[in-house]
Amino acid sequence: MDIDEGLIFAYAADLLKEDLGRGDITSMAVVRGGRQAQGRFLAKQDFVLCGLEVAEAVFTSLDGRIQLEARAYDGEAISAGTEFARIEGPAGVLLAGERTALNLMQRMSGVATLTKAFVDRVAGTGAAIVDTRKTTPGLRLLEKYAVHVGGGRNHRFGLDDGVLIKDNHIALVGGVRRAVELARESVPHLMKIEVEVANRSQLRDAIAARADCIMLDNMEPDEIRHCVELIREQAPGVIVEVSGGVNLESVRTLAECGADMISVGAITHSATAVDISMKIAPI
Amino acid sequence: MDIDEGLIFAYAADLLKEDLGRGDITSMAVVRGGRQAQGRFLAKQDFVLCGLEVAEAVFTSLDGRIQLEARAYDGEAISAGTEFARIEGPAGVLLAGERTALNLMQRMSGVATLTKAFVDRVAGTGAAIVDTRKTTPGLRLLEKYAVHVGGGRNHRFGLDDGVLIKDNHIALVGGVRRAVELARESVPHLMKIEVEVANRSQLRDAIAARADCIMLDNMEPDEIRHCVELIREQAPGVIVEVSGGVNLESVRTLAECGADMISVGAITHSATAVDISMKIAPI
Amino acid sequence: MDIDEGLIFAYAADLLKEDLGRGDITSMAVVRGGRQAQGRFLAKQDFVLCGLEVAEAVFTSLDGRIQLEARAYDGEAISAGTEFARIEGPAGVLLAGERTALNLMQRMSGVATLTKAFVDRVAGTGAAIVDTRKTTPGLRLLEKYAVHVGGGRNHRFGLDDGVLIKDNHIALVGGVRRAVELARESVPHLMKIEVEVANRSQLRDAIAARADCIMLDNMEPDEIRHCVELIREQAPGVIVEVSGGVNLESVRTLAECGADMISVGAITHSATAVDISMKIAPI
Amino acid sequence: MDIDEGLIFAYAADLLKEDLGRGDITSMAVVRGGRQAQGRFLAKQDFVLCGLEVAEAVFTSLDGRIQLEARAYDGEAISAGTEFARIEGPAGVLLAGERTALNLMQRMSGVATLTKAFVDRVAGTGAAIVDTRKTTPGLRLLEKYAVHVGGGRNHRFGLDDGVLIKDNHIALVGGVRRAVELARESVPHLMKIEVEVANRSQLRDAIAARADCIMLDNMEPDEIRHCVELIREQAPGVIVEVSGGVNLESVRTLAECGADMISVGAITHSATAVDISMKIAPI
Amino acid sequence: MDIDEGLIFAYAADLLKEDLGRGDITSMAVVRGGRQAQGRFLAKQDFVLCGLEVAEAVFTSLDGRIQLEARAYDGEAISAGTEFARIEGPAGVLLAGERTALNLMQRMSGVATLTKAFVDRVAGTGAAIVDTRKTTPGLRLLEKYAVHVGGGRNHRFGLDDGVLIKDNHIALVGGVRRAVELARESVPHLMKIEVEVANRSQLRDAIAARADCIMLDNMEPDEIRHCVELIREQAPGVIVEVSGGVNLESVRTLAECGADMISVGAITHSATAVDISMKIAPI
Amino acid sequence: MDIDEGLIFAYAADLLKEDLGRGDITSMAVVRGGRQAQGRFLAKQDFVLCGLEVAEAVFTSLDGRIQLEARAYDGEAISAGTEFARIEGPAGVLLAGERTALNLMQRMSGVATLTKAFVDRVAGTGAAIVDTRKTTPGLRLLEKYAVHVGGGRNHRFGLDDGVLIKDNHIALVGGVRRAVELARESVPHLMKIEVEVANRSQLRDAIAARADCIMLDNMEPDEIRHCVELIREQAPGVIVEVSGGVNLESVRTLAECGADMISVGAITHSATAVDISMKIAPI
Repeated sequence: MDIDEGLIFAYAADLLKEDLGRGDITSMAVVRGGRQAQGRFLAKQDFVLCGLEVAEAVFTSLDGRIQLEARAYDGEAISAGTEFARIEGPAGVLLAGERTALNLMQRMSGVATLTKAFVDRVAGTGAAIVDTRKTTPGLRLLEKYAVHVGGGRNHRFGLDDGVLIKDNHIALVGGVRRAVELARESVPHLMKIEVEVANRSQLRDAIAARADCIMLDNMEPDEIRHCVELIREQAPGVIVEVSGGVNLESVRTLAECGADMISVGAITHSATAVDISMKIAPI
Repeated sequence: MDIDEGLIFAYAADLLKEDLGRGDITSMAVVRGGRQAQGRFLAKQDFVLCGLEVAEAVFTSLDGRIQLEARAYDGEAISAGTEFARIEGPAGVLLAGERTALNLMQRMSGVATLTKAFVDRVAGTGAAIVDTRKTTPGLRLLEKYAVHVGGGRNHRFGLDDGVLIKDNHIALVGGVRRAVELARESVPHLMKIEVEVANRSQLRDAIAARADCIMLDNMEPDEIRHCVELIREQAPGVIVEVSGGVNLESVRTLAECGADMISVGAITHSATAVDISMKIAPI
Repeated sequence: MDIDEGLIFAYAADLLKEDLGRGDITSMAVVRGGRQAQGRFLAKQDFVLCGLEVAEAVFTSLDGRIQLEARAYDGEAISAGTEFARIEGPAGVLLAGERTALNLMQRMSGVATLTKAFVDRVAGTGAAIVDTRKTTPGLRLLEKYAVHVGGGRNHRFGLDDGVLIKDNHIALVGGVRRAVELARESVPHLMKIEVEVANRSQLRDAIAARADCIMLDNMEPDEIRHCVELIREQAPGVIVEVSGGVNLESVRTLAECGADMISVGAITHSATAVDISMKIAPI
Repeated sequence: MDIDEGLIFAYAADLLKEDLGRGDITSMAVVRGGRQAQGRFLAKQDFVLCGLEVAEAVFTSLDGRIQLEARAYDGEAISAGTEFARIEGPAGVLLAGERTALNLMQRMSGVATLTKAFVDRVAGTGAAIVDTRKTTPGLRLLEKYAVHVGGGRNHRFGLDDGVLIKDNHIALVGGVRRAVELARESVPHLMKIEVEVANRSQLRDAIAARADCIMLDNMEPDEIRHCVELIREQAPGVIVEVSGGVNLESVRTLAECGADMISVGAITHSATAVDISMKIAPI
Repeated sequence: MDIDEGLIFAYAADLLKEDLGRGDITSMAVVRGGRQAQGRFLAKQDFVLCGLEVAEAVFTSLDGRIQLEARAYDGEAISAGTEFARIEGPAGVLLAGERTALNLMQRMSGVATLTKAFVDRVAGTGAAIVDTRKTTPGLRLLEKYAVHVGGGRNHRFGLDDGVLIKDNHIALVGGVRRAVELARESVPHLMKIEVEVANRSQLRDAIAARADCIMLDNMEPDEIRHCVELIREQAPGVIVEVSGGVNLESVRTLAECGADMISVGAITHSATAVDISMKIAPI
Repeated sequence: MDIDEGLIFAYAADLLKEDLGRGDITSMAVVRGGRQAQGRFLAKQDFVLCGLEVAEAVFTSLDGRIQLEARAYDGEAISAGTEFARIEGPAGVLLAGERTALNLMQRMSGVATLTKAFVDRVAGTGAAIVDTRKTTPGLRLLEKYAVHVGGGRNHRFGLDDGVLIKDNHIALVGGVRRAVELARESVPHLMKIEVEVANRSQLRDAIAARADCIMLDNMEPDEIRHCVELIREQAPGVIVEVSGGVNLESVRTLAECGADMISVGAITHSATAVDISMKIAPI
């Protein structure tokens, strides 16, 4: 999913405050006056770019007159050594926003890059890569956008925009069937009901309860293949999601089992920052 | 550095909102009424625990009557398979807080665990591992606390609580010496002045300007060794920090060059989540 | 849908500030000291009670020691003259919270009562009454909860938790079919796609595009009946919603046309306050 | 009273968030890119317009480049079928703001329209129609402005900007006289003191205590007439307010009893939304 | 006017953040663990105590278990050397809140003490001392409360709770009379209308326009005496306020001119902090 | 230290709300429509100007089109009678912002003026005047900026950006030496450690513990002189601060004792407002 401009600005302005605190004392002391400067964003490794507008918003939240010239866009593959954007404005503003802008862009690009690796790995299987709620607290919208930019699809954005009945719910309510029925009684009609199943007995209950989506959790490939067949036969139209400790090594095998989507917590919880530098010089 | 209890609570309550939104519709539909449940936190891998109080605060921000029984504490090494904490309270509260609590604890433990690995690697060299401002936007205090829990030391918490003159400042102001002098003119007397140097000429300027700390940026081990000797001779008492693309392979060699501290962006920007599960059952 | 306790408290505390401002100058001047008082809530007309916990939260947000004794619960039919709750606490607190608590409870009960009237009118037809986003700005969660309490079902809670393609979208994108396809490409898989149709041609497109839900907008009963039949034949499993200027006079006829649900903006945008008084006396 | 522009903007931006949440997923999926569109606001019934600037602010809070062309102004009588305003901007912005803008304008116009009906009913009697604090929580300033636009006058805006001693205060303090005296001791000298009286004995006390305004609560017309005469004789200059369950049927008779103002809770607590549509088309 | 407990807590918690920032690093480093301590508040000069509850709220906002034992109350005259309160709780909490609590109490007591000096100076004249809006930005409610505690009366709390037509308004609108009439047309009926006059011509206009209060601005004692007589004769019941550069030397002479109140900006804008210390020791 | 523009705006906008509340009812009633006006800022006494940008931000936070023409700048000595700035914009905006802008500028100029008096008094001694944390709650950044403008230096901005071990810490931890050692173990390496000593025994401990700065608290001039000599001999490079009840009479004598800086709480806690008026006229 795309992300609203107003929300981007709110994120950027809010996160900057954490670093800025009472002000950038080094820059205020060293770079006095309003001298103009230029910053160049350089890729120090190969990656999928993500977060350029967020980075821009960090600087514009400090000073509306900042100008960013993009030479690449979110979703593009950037090669090490490329200068992919330039920014101009008062030196003090470039210095104050630098770290927050980089931290955001480096993390978002990290998520997009890792997502792209998973998406490439399952190419041609018909299975989509979807994210989870295992995102960095405070950055969910930005990370889900990065998944989208990397070619993945988005699952729920929070506890309030989708119904997913998990093992803990089932343990509390006493069974898959009862849980799905309770959900159907009260959740809004525009929401599908997904239920997690760990074995064939739960799968049969899920089908009987007419769940809209079924998540096969932590199963071996053979078992997944068997379950997918069962669902296709007995519950055509039901979406099948495979989940559980998926990594770059295992994802292709799982994707070939016939499910509609593979959810991968790793694309957000195990992404690391890509290496980007910002070089500032007077103009 | 430790972290204030009030701040922990504020973080937890605030970050939970991102996931909770208008409410946990699945749990409200499925687990009706106020039934009590118990959650058990289980380690699915070896790691250094960090964030247990933050996780607790997530749940207590939802309901003040939640009881958490800790069987381990922040900083302890946890082995895969260990149940390190239990929590009791209304089932709906445990379900609503589960993901946010896990996301926080998994990330914080990831940072503490990676920090510990770096700290262990430099054992006996006399060099400390310090963090940077390359933290996840929005989580700086929590990640800096995790560095502390993992045995590392904390550098600046923001742009406002320390003076660090970097390459970009020097480029703008025209030299190391001038930059340090300008800083000394106006920054509060309780703050030391650190300056980044990339070569011997800059180092000589830094010494001449009587910087309190000198960061040797992106130098080879031999060059670092030489520079450290120079500083010890000509500027006794000055703190020496080594910085630049440090990883687990290179850190020991760098630490043996005699600097006081090695700063490592990776302990925050490249830490990944450790694997923790929370099993909820009725009581 | 139910409503989270924490959110209720946040609503109550926040809305009270609007009335309280810099403080209740009359009560501070007139009722000095901490004398205890009792407030009795009296129904001045028949209505369906809704909002008692919200009213309680208004007072407890002022003073945690307030005690409310409920003699009826949300969803109960209250007769004129009934004392349905009592509250005890410092007189100044009861006076300061009185108006906000009443305003909220009166409006929420008004929505529940009007919803109940619509629900009763369609009894036995199999059609559910659902709400819309035509709620009072700022009170959506509370009003949607009141709809639920009155026996209605909830539609989307906002623009972010469901997909509803309306006339304006169709006008911009050039057709029902294209719009549904575009939505399917990017929206999360747990969300159903609903599309509004105004005539048979659009209906055929909606069926062809495999929309999950179809809203028949502003049609005459005969036309609705015809369209419902078409959907049941050609698109079994698709949910049918009827919409457009529904009132207490027309709702039964519409409900008898066979749709799954009738959405009624009036239950929120045209509900009025029920009459409740709060009598305070010293104890 | 008029309403400050800055406050209008703050209201609009804040209330929009409730509907927008994490973003308008339908419009982001369906209406991609920045295509420009035009929205036309159409009256679907006769009403007194109110809230056009608030509606405009909803859109400009999303995007500062939105242009609204007003063809009518707050306070004008609009006939069914009239197009009273046009707006131009990115289609996604018009779609995202539509519902919140309409909900606000429909409710505010509803209040203005109902107020106007009461004001017209008492024309020539010399009595003003005034509002109460029985407003929709969260919308008080907007609804009080709508009362003003509809020709009514504003009573207190909150508990902090006027002194009104009501039955509950009197019950707690033991009498009208004592209550007025206590108020006079400590309230700011620019505030008048109003007291509610329910019978002649209380009225005599109010006059003796030299209240600045007297509210005759829930009295029959004959009794009101008698009391007004008494006040005019014995306490010239005192403002007389009539209050209690006033409706369109009773208001003229009450107004003819000679009081200065009739306060009507119904103009806010029982106003309903007027019918306005917004048609969006590409340009 | 008294001040609401909830507001006191909000003030205290909010203002503490300014000092606390990311945490009290000295105390966290030095005073580890949860050791209990006792703090004693000592007067280092004579003053009128004000702000004890605010100081308490600073500490309880950090930790709800803090216990404060008051040995004196707001409004009491405290002699140098007196220990007027004790507080017990975790040492880290006492240290973190100390400065903010003292800063607030010292300033509030400063305002109360200076107010008391003015009030004592006019004893027996029948004139009240009233404050102005020349308060410290951000602390208005607390400073107005301190004026009340010191025996003064409160004027407007803001631009929104009273009508005061000043020289700048008159310059813009073209005359006292027109200004008063315009105000009467639209301001709520519970608000009195005060107008500032600088000479007899303006005074005659103010009387003719039936202003409720008249402020004699920057006049000599003889002129004040004359104007007061004129008002008493021609406009009995009108409140007379004297204003303009009043100090402890001039206030008695002005008070003897017969006005109802003397407004003194100095009691807030020129109050200085009284000297209070807090001694912390382990228990 | 200078102050960030974004922070200035945030301060101004936030503090204005306290005065504005629900709106400036006098000006809205009296000065209708958007008529333009001009305001002239006039010095009514001699002072050091401070806060002009903050004052400007108060008005621009209300209306972005306001134009302020400065005829003097922060730090300049202004003579009584000087018109030091003009502002143009809608009359209603000038009236609404007037009091808050003046209150801020008057207080900030008051602090700058008093600081300048202290700075002038110690001219030639080599000792700097530094501020303390005894600032007005809520205005710390603005007051510290005013100290800087007046020629003083800034000490800590909060509990989180410097380490200062005071008498209360020492009492709790059992000695100067232990306290300094504990601090060194955990505080960030860019922060110096300052410790307060009250006698020679503590001074010897502070030197032995290698504190970076030593504060001589409440000592007589002779004792200060002796201690400074001791520090210069035994701990060259350590910064010496003198503290404790310093006033304009005593400061020169203290400054001549050889310390590096004299900290003066009075420059913030005992500064009073300078007298500035704003005259508004139509244009």
